[in-house]
Amino acid sequence: MSDVLVYTVPGAGLLALLYAFVSSRWIGSQDAGTDRMKEIAGYIQEGAMAFLGREYRVLAIFVAVVAVLLGIANATTEDGHWLVAVPFIFGAVCSGLAGFIGMRVATSANVRTTAAARQGLVGALAVAFRGGAVMGMSVVGLALLGLGGLFIVFTTAPVAWMQNADGGVNLTRLLAVLSGFSLGASSIALFARVGGGIYTKAADVGADLVGKVEQNIPEDDPRNPATIADNVGDNVGDVAGMGADLFESYVGAIIGAMVIAASIGRLDGVLLPILLAAAGIVISIGGTFFVRTKEGGDPQAALNIGTFGAGGIMLVATYLVAAVVLKEPLDFGDYQVSATNVFFATVAGLIAGILVGVVTEYYCAKNKGPVNQIVKDSETGTATNVISGIAVGMQSTAIPILLIAVATVVAFQAAGLYGIAMAALGMLSTTGIQLAVDAYGPIADNAGGIAEMSELPPEVRERTDTLDAVGNTTAAIGKGFAIASAALTALALFSAFKTQAGVTAIDVSKPIVMAGVFLGAMLPFLFSSFAMRAVGSAANDMIVEVRRQFREIAGLMEGTAKAEYAKCVDISTTAALKQMMMPGLMAVIAPVIVGVVAGTEALAGLLAGVTVSGVCLAIFMSNAGGAWDNAKKQIEGEPKDPEKNTGKGSEKHKAAVNGDTVGDPFKDTAGPSLNILVKLMSVVALVLAPVFAKLTPLL
Amino acid sequence: MSDVLVYTVPGAGLLALLYAFVSSRWIGSQDAGTDRMKEIAGYIQEGAMAFLGREYRVLAIFVAVVAVLLGIANATTEDGHWLVAVPFIFGAVCSGLAGFIGMRVATSANVRTTAAARQGLVGALAVAFRGGAVMGMSVVGLALLGLGGLFIVFTTAPVAWMQNADGGVNLTRLLAVLSGFSLGASSIALFARVGGGIYTKAADVGADLVGKVEQNIPEDDPRNPATIADNVGDNVGDVAGMGADLFESYVGAIIGAMVIAASIGRLDGVLLPILLAAAGIVISIGGTFFVRTKEGGDPQAALNIGTFGAGGIMLVATYLVAAVVLKEPLDFGDYQVSATNVFFATVAGLIAGILVGVVTEYYCAKNKGPVNQIVKDSETGTATNVISGIAVGMQSTAIPILLIAVATVVAFQAAGLYGIAMAALGMLSTTGIQLAVDAYGPIADNAGGIAEMSELPPEVRERTDTLDAVGNTTAAIGKGFAIASAALTALALFSAFKTQAGVTAIDVSKPIVMAGVFLGAMLPFLFSSFAMRAVGSAANDMIVEVRRQFREIAGLMEGTAKAEYAKCVDISTTAALKQMMMPGLMAVIAPVIVGVVAGTEALAGLLAGVTVSGVCLAIFMSNAGGAWDNAKKQIEGEPKDPEKNTGKGSEKHKAAVNGDTVGDPFKDTAGPSLNILVKLMSVVALVLAPVFAKLTPLL
Repeated sequence: MSDVLVYTVPGAGLLALLYAFVSSRWIGSQDAGTDRMKEIAGYIQEGAMAFLGREYRVLAIFVAVVAVLLGIANATTEDGHWLVAVPFIFGAVCSGLAGFIGMRVATSANVRTTAAARQGLVGALAVAFRGGAVMGMSVVGLALLGLGGLFIVFTTAPVAWMQNADGGVNLTRLLAVLSGFSLGASSIALFARVGGGIYTKAADVGADLVGKVEQNIPEDDPRNPATIADNVGDNVGDVAGMGADLFESYVGAIIGAMVIAASIGRLDGVLLPILLAAAGIVISIGGTFFVRTKEGGDPQAALNIGTFGAGGIMLVATYLVAAVVLKEPLDFGDYQVSATNVFFATVAGLIAGILVGVVTEYYCAKNKGPVNQIVKDSETGTATNVISGIAVGMQSTAIPILLIAVATVVAFQAAGLYGIAMAALGMLSTTGIQLAVDAYGPIADNAGGIAEMSELPPEVRERTDTLDAVGNTTAAIGKGFAIASAALTALALFSAFKTQAGVTAIDVSKPIVMAGVFLGAMLPFLFSSFAMRAVGSAANDMIVEVRRQFREIAGLMEGTAKAEYAKCVDISTTAALKQMMMPGLMAVIAPVIVGVVAGTEALAGLLAGVTVSGVCLAIFMSNAGGAWDNAKKQIEGEPKDPEKNTGKGSEKHKAAVNGDTVGDPFKDTAGPSLNILVKLMSVVALVLAPVFAKLTPLL
Repeated sequence: MSDVLVYTVPGAGLLALLYAFVSSRWIGSQDAGTDRMKEIAGYIQEGAMAFLGREYRVLAIFVAVVAVLLGIANATTEDGHWLVAVPFIFGAVCSGLAGFIGMRVATSANVRTTAAARQGLVGALAVAFRGGAVMGMSVVGLALLGLGGLFIVFTTAPVAWMQNADGGVNLTRLLAVLSGFSLGASSIALFARVGGGIYTKAADVGADLVGKVEQNIPEDDPRNPATIADNVGDNVGDVAGMGADLFESYVGAIIGAMVIAASIGRLDGVLLPILLAAAGIVISIGGTFFVRTKEGGDPQAALNIGTFGAGGIMLVATYLVAAVVLKEPLDFGDYQVSATNVFFATVAGLIAGILVGVVTEYYCAKNKGPVNQIVKDSETGTATNVISGIAVGMQSTAIPILLIAVATVVAFQAAGLYGIAMAALGMLSTTGIQLAVDAYGPIADNAGGIAEMSELPPEVRERTDTLDAVGNTTAAIGKGFAIASAALTALALFSAFKTQAGVTAIDVSKPIVMAGVFLGAMLPFLFSSFAMRAVGSAANDMIVEVRRQFREIAGLMEGTAKAEYAKCVDISTTAALKQMMMPGLMAVIAPVIVGVVAGTEALAGLLAGVTVSGVCLAIFMSNAGGAWDNAKKQIEGEPKDPEKNTGKGSEKHKAAVNGDTVGDPFKDTAGPSLNILVKLMSVVALVLAPVFAKLTPLL
């Protein structure tokens, strides 16, 4: 049975890529507007692709070096194999390719969305959403094609090392090698998120502080030298960064579940996660056809039908696929896992993810308690605005963490460790359409920027703004899924590490383990400080450059001279690439050092510490940033009255702009990167588990 | 032997109180200056004592209610006894009394320091330091009098429940009751720190933002309506709050070590911690006599000789006392603890504490890398200043956490869990003189405020500023001790809880335990958000009131009309008392809920999570706040040149003032409170351990 079914996995991957291909051809055939629009879009695409090119050159060296080290380290031990380097490279390449395709299409869809928005909302929604869908389908397609393909190769033509005495496949060893794919994906994701996050925020902060605050010109004004870099940043941060992020979440959740099932040698349990993902692709593609509206219709409803519809169908499909695949319950000793158990674990994950999303939205949405409070506290200046935002962000950790804790316990009750991994996968199996909605936002945002810079009539910008706003609610749920699934995936991965490394218990009452937990809890702080410092330093360079151009280029403010966009693009690119190295390397090296020095149980403690502290910090930083952003927007929506200290240009508004700027690296650099960090460290430990298991720790 | 030695414990306590009494009489006999000085000092003392009175009335209710609940809960189980409520009440009362005495004397020493500073530095140092010493000696004196007294009562006239079959004292049960003292101390400390922190920062932020930024009048200008409240705040926050804080650290470290020794039934091991503390008192008193200087001498050197000298002698005394008390090694099964082992554990703690202090100073000191960076980032405005400060704070967690992790492992290697407790105690045994130095700072600060408000010649203020600055280095080491000892004490207490509750391992690979760790890691964020929000809201009220007075009181700016100081004092008092309840109650209730719902192992997970995340957040917030503060001061020391954007009044300075204001609740409200929080939760669990051990958790 399984023999046939397994071919559906790369098949579904190919289907997704076909969808992406057709969609991108369709987008390419759309009108790209006036020459001015094409010129601007050209700058943006050129800047974005140039960044990606330079980033990938750096990452190629990193991947090559790590692949060699990984191969050598694993070759030294009986339970490991140098072959792990192959899936590692595949994982990295597939992730990079997905980012490349997604961004290439996004930077061609943006201007075509603007062009379509000159006519109305319907066409613009179609172009923007199809653009996002290319990203979504490239991610899930390449993930399943890569994972499924490698799985088939390793099972049909296995190396002797991967075979049991009876000639069958040794699933534990197969997965020990296959988890390299997840490590490749996680490494690329971390660098892409951090690099993209630094890029986008350096440009954004530079453009805003000098343009909006000092020179009093509007956002996306073509006179602002940083404006192209800012729009490039939306693409490299929000499109390519987010794509790599979701690629790694998706792969991590799948691999986590596979490893846990492999530990009891059950092929059906190992296959179930990839088969569910394959089903998710088909359902996601189906969902995209429901995202359409007529003029005057409600684009929000269209997006909701597509994503929630796909989610609902996926839930039913989960039960059916599990029932078909699991002919008898998986026997983990302490507990049995049947299709029903998988179903309930998935439900627990989905409910937790949705509720985390709802809470996230509450804390960040305009006109609700927390943002109202920040708006009020902005009346007394920047300091009180900042204090208020930090308080909101910190408070917003409470309910999501409680939900994650409950989901962990419930999923475990339902289906053990396998259930925890399944709960994460439940949220991610429709990544195809979810990411389409996520990536649609920055495309609409970019489209607005192009409208502004091309000096199109204001109604075009209004339409793109409507599109942009519409994606927010759906994106908030996506954010909840990202956080909750990251926590659960990290747990699943670190349980998988524990199994692979032969650790029986992680007893924090042992001081060496507690020391590991302490160090682990600290690392997300250190990591965030690198990320913030990187943005601060890159933004500083940008501010200096933008100020220089305003000072030195005669006629720039009058619109008679042109800004030197390329210089700003270059500053962001160079800074991002330089500054992403330190935090990225730290994440990869820290678990290795702890594993070698203090042993596997201390390393497990480190992972526990990283997970809890990283998730808390991620929620804090993302939500504080989101709340500051919307507090600023809420003030901008107030009637403009300097006397009453309301609206744009008021002292209150200036305070809120400062708060929003503080929040930028919180929500777009450090926050989302932390979600990857917690998983990356667990994957590093997992992939090196055979090595650590044989080492005698120095302590 | 022990029978005689144990009486030295309350004896040393009485000696410390005698020293405090004599010193306070001496201070009272000093000249209090002009009528204007007396008037202002009177306002401050009145405001401070009024706050304390109202705070204690609230806390009395809290203590009464908790005492009853504690008694009832413990009465329900064979391993607990209602008697635990008695040490609880004693602990709370002793802590409160120490705060009362310390603040009463501090508010009388401040004006006399000003008066003495009119003549020169020597007299001023003497008065300020003696004032701080009263606080220090009251804390250690009342702690040992209370603890030692209760210990003697319980051992000489034990209740039957506390006796073994052979008529001897059952040490485990004795300590189960005696740990109530630590709970009382921790509860008062948390409320005092949070309440005092809210008070002082609401006043400070209100005074600074309206006075310095909006009205451009100097700090401590008598025209500023919030200036008295600001000076009251220094006392209730930095004197009373810090006193209660160190009282609980001191008691917590002692009790932690005692409980661990009690678990193997060794009276000498139980006595050793209190005997070391008694020796520490005698050495501290000796140290105070070396803190003196002649005119033109170096007050810094005087403070250093006193504190470091006392520390060094204490180290030798530790070995000697341990050698006398431990006739044979303590046998913990896995490891043996001799005097040498205790000595090495103590050394590990001391070295870690000193290094944490050095690192803390590096991150917060003027003209060093981190603060220079913040100063540079202030050039581009408030947002980059804030981002920079947060990055510095987060980065500053790395080395201290590493040091704490290493100290934990080393102390454990040296002397097991007992060693971890001893490492903490090593840092705290000379609390008497350390706290004298800590409390001396706010007295000198207050003296400067009084000089300013009484319009004394500028050289008086310069002298008090010199005094204030001198305490900083010594205080930084004290801060390092506070952080490192909090972490180690929390570990000792939570290990003690584990022993008392009969938990064999705390395995975070069990989902219910991991859920506990997750919740635990989140609580410090929630707690900090309450604290920040409280300051934000109280400061807002203050700002509104100060603005109103500047607007409505004719002649206030010209100095012809008087500000309504009392209104501002009242706003701070009311806000602080109202806002301290929520975070305080949360800290007490959370472990109870988790213990009841999820059982002792999940509760232990909660404590581990609270400890690691709380310590990281505490270091982050304290150091970010300290760095912002000194970045502002460094800019104030630059030549005043608005063209070059340097010095007071420049845009850069305004950015730094905003950053400093954000840092105020970080470093003076949330940060230090977190140190208490991590211990309080462990103590709550410890005291209720007999109850939890018998409960069937709901999950």
